Amino acid sequence: MTIKDIARECGVGISTVSRVLNNRPDVSEDVRQRVLAAVEAKGYIPNNSARDLVKSRSDAIGVVVRGTGNLFFSAMIKTISAEIDRCGYDMVLRFLDAGEDEVKAGAILEREKKLRGLLFLGGRFNYTPGEMSLIGVPYVCCSYTNSFGSLRETDFSSVSIDDFETARQAVNTLINAGHKRIAAFFDDCEDHSISELRFGGYKAALREHSIAYDENLVVQTGGFEMEDGYTGMKELLSRPCSFTAAFVESDMMAIAAIKALNDSGLSVPDDCSVIAIDGLDLSRYVTPTLTTMVQPCEEIGLESVRILLSMMQDGSVTEHIRPVATLRAGASVKNILS
Amino acid sequence: MTIKDIARECGVGISTVSRVLNNRPDVSEDVRQRVLAAVEAKGYIPNNSARDLVKSRSDAIGVVVRGTGNLFFSAMIKTISAEIDRCGYDMVLRFLDAGEDEVKAGAILEREKKLRGLLFLGGRFNYTPGEMSLIGVPYVCCSYTNSFGSLRETDFSSVSIDDFETARQAVNTLINAGHKRIAAFFDDCEDHSISELRFGGYKAALREHSIAYDENLVVQTGGFEMEDGYTGMKELLSRPCSFTAAFVESDMMAIAAIKALNDSGLSVPDDCSVIAIDGLDLSRYVTPTLTTMVQPCEEIGLESVRILLSMMQDGSVTEHIRPVATLRAGASVKNILS
Repeated sequence: MTIKDIARECGVGISTVSRVLNNRPDVSEDVRQRVLAAVEAKGYIPNNSARDLVKSRSDAIGVVVRGTGNLFFSAMIKTISAEIDRCGYDMVLRFLDAGEDEVKAGAILEREKKLRGLLFLGGRFNYTPGEMSLIGVPYVCCSYTNSFGSLRETDFSSVSIDDFETARQAVNTLINAGHKRIAAFFDDCEDHSISELRFGGYKAALREHSIAYDENLVVQTGGFEMEDGYTGMKELLSRPCSFTAAFVESDMMAIAAIKALNDSGLSVPDDCSVIAIDGLDLSRYVTPTLTTMVQPCEEIGLESVRILLSMMQDGSVTEHIRPVATLRAGASVKNILS
Repeated sequence: MTIKDIARECGVGISTVSRVLNNRPDVSEDVRQRVLAAVEAKGYIPNNSARDLVKSRSDAIGVVVRGTGNLFFSAMIKTISAEIDRCGYDMVLRFLDAGEDEVKAGAILEREKKLRGLLFLGGRFNYTPGEMSLIGVPYVCCSYTNSFGSLRETDFSSVSIDDFETARQAVNTLINAGHKRIAAFFDDCEDHSISELRFGGYKAALREHSIAYDENLVVQTGGFEMEDGYTGMKELLSRPCSFTAAFVESDMMAIAAIKALNDSGLSVPDDCSVIAIDGLDLSRYVTPTLTTMVQPCEEIGLESVRILLSMMQDGSVTEHIRPVATLRAGASVKNILS
């Protein structure tokens, strides 16, 4: 499958296909859609320019970032960038738009930039070997792993907290403070990804304490942005059910959820306790200080680079590391036992 | 001046100098300091590796980021990265540590990566032609300009809001709401940089309204981090002076300053109004919603890349663009006239 095949298939010139693949403005929308559909259907991976075809493999490591606007990733990118630089490699950074697939983006980047290795900063948890065969260099899943997929442990490396366990501990913190009516906010409870694992941890904590699961208390926000946390809490407040606490799966969404409570005349933690996962520095400076499970951001970044470099020297060495998230108590959880 | 001269000067081997320059851990602190002092004194710019020496100029654009942990820059990096990619260039990203000089870092990056151009994301405002002669490719000052330096307008390009004017408008917003005792927070009032300009805007607004300047109301925070905003407000509260409003030079610092007010039992805006500059998305989701001057982040990023590319084609074309910051009213400023 070459660029010529795509051009023939679409009845356009090679340069037109090239313009579409390089996202240039000078192509009609109709032609663009036709070319993209053909590229999609044929699974074609472009070599973006003739220049790249003649380059031998570089000293570049690709970093594909899924989920931006997220301070958690901002901090990690800085750590990863400094470490790649310190080790004498170049970093090629690629931010994904919502809905873009990281595997395809990574595969394209690998060919365009002749990468030596890839770091995926966030991604799906359900890769198949067939899908990952697109990636021809060692890669590390950074801040997630393949819980719902069919990769063998020896096919890839990962550095991530245990999402199920971290959510379970967060919810247990609320239960230990006397809460039984605990709302929870997830991007999507059946995403075969981070939210499904954290949803599992939420249900496990309830089960351990014989608290009945109530689906009315669970909100699927359909995203990870602050806006999603805000509208999610507003939706919950419109339902005819009571709750004394909420577990929110990221600090940024939790801050927005607290804002929604405030805007509805409710106060945290008196009317509703809130706990989250991430442990951003920012969360120390909101009122009330957010209680949150802190991800060891720097450790995750450094370990990911270390493992990738050792895989680049010997592709058969894979590692799966589970750094531990720890509770940082703020003032957003109220003990209602006393 | 070569690496050999530095090695001879310091009485160490070339490989030791190389290790210091590459920031490797296996060098004693004593030797490291000696080598860095010699590098500094001689103005030596390393070519980091033999590999780089044989490469011809690449298609890479360097982006040197000063001031991290800042959501304002995170958003801009995403815009700049996508635009550089769309135009068919590679982005080489370099984050500076506090205290590192962006000109030197840019000059080193230029030689190591054979850059075609440089974008400085934040930097000093007082460059001299001698200093900038280290930079051998076109560059754009992104989000700042050379207000205190001696560059000619035809030597460089810049895209930045007018810091003096934006601060003046922010403080005028407070004055128009009836405030006269207005505190202000700056990194450093005489930094020949962004804070000095904004400090000037603050004083100009007071002068226009015949409000006496009171140095007790001005806090120099010594940094741009949230922690600096928090400790700055705590310091102000310990002074024997009263105030009804505060101008803070960044959203992140303002959020932390509000936290310090809350922790001292004061409420915003009832006890103290707060206004800032940046206009982060985050600032819509804190309580109270922050009133802030919004920087047109995307415009600044896109214009910077556009200008840099046109300079790369014709180095003599420089531009200086001043996008306008606009007020976004939140709930953190109280009108005390009525």
